[in-house]
Amino acid sequence: MHKHNVFDETATLTEFWSQRVLQESNGTLLKVAKGIDSTRWHSHDDQDETFLVLSGKLIVQLRDEDVELGPGDLFTVPQGVEHCPVAPEEARFLIIGRSVTSNAAGGKPEWSYTES
Amino acid sequence: MHKHNVFDETATLTEFWSQRVLQESNGTLLKVAKGIDSTRWHSHDDQDETFLVLSGKLIVQLRDEDVELGPGDLFTVPQGVEHCPVAPEEARFLIIGRSVTSNAAGGKPEWSYTES
Repeated sequence: MHKHNVFDETATLTEFWSQRVLQESNGTLLKVAKGIDSTRWHSHDDQDETFLVLSGKLIVQLRDEDVELGPGDLFTVPQGVEHCPVAPEEARFLIIGRSVTSNAAGGKPEWSYTES
Repeated sequence: MHKHNVFDETATLTEFWSQRVLQESNGTLLKVAKGIDSTRWHSHDDQDETFLVLSGKLIVQLRDEDVELGPGDLFTVPQGVEHCPVAPEEARFLIIGRSVTSNAAGGKPEWSYTES
């Protein structure tokens, strides 16, 4: 049982749109990430995906509306719903979901991968 | 699908140690609450309980240590682990768990109930 500070954790992320798992709770993962520019359209057939913005602005594009999120805004994309998150300025956020989704199937853009 | 602002939501809470459900994600509830003074020792046999402090200070007393949480601190009390949250100053926080636990079994103190 350890605590994590979500602001400190997001400050040390090096790669955009890459999730770091902090804790597990009731079968879901509590993750942090940072974003800039656009991801790609995708959906998750196995899980809901919840965003809580910590700083900046995150626009969760859905097929029929854009949901604009600022600090403290909480929003859940239901399982199976197509979405495309966009960050017009750098955004840092908490993500809650069953697994890590920062991969090609989860909309992570090609340019965002750092050399390792 | 609606967004909620966790700061706005906690600002309108009237009763201490009473949880308001904002959203549901993967079978868990995303809830907000505010606290002052002490709850009572208890445990949850059916769920982990995660706290994310939004403002103030929340001390999650465990039998063998006190975990002090400030803004941005995330901490999960595992299922079955005895705990007693205390707020030396008013604290506002997000709680993630399977059900609403702000009741007598969940440690809600007698004084905190408002007349209705």
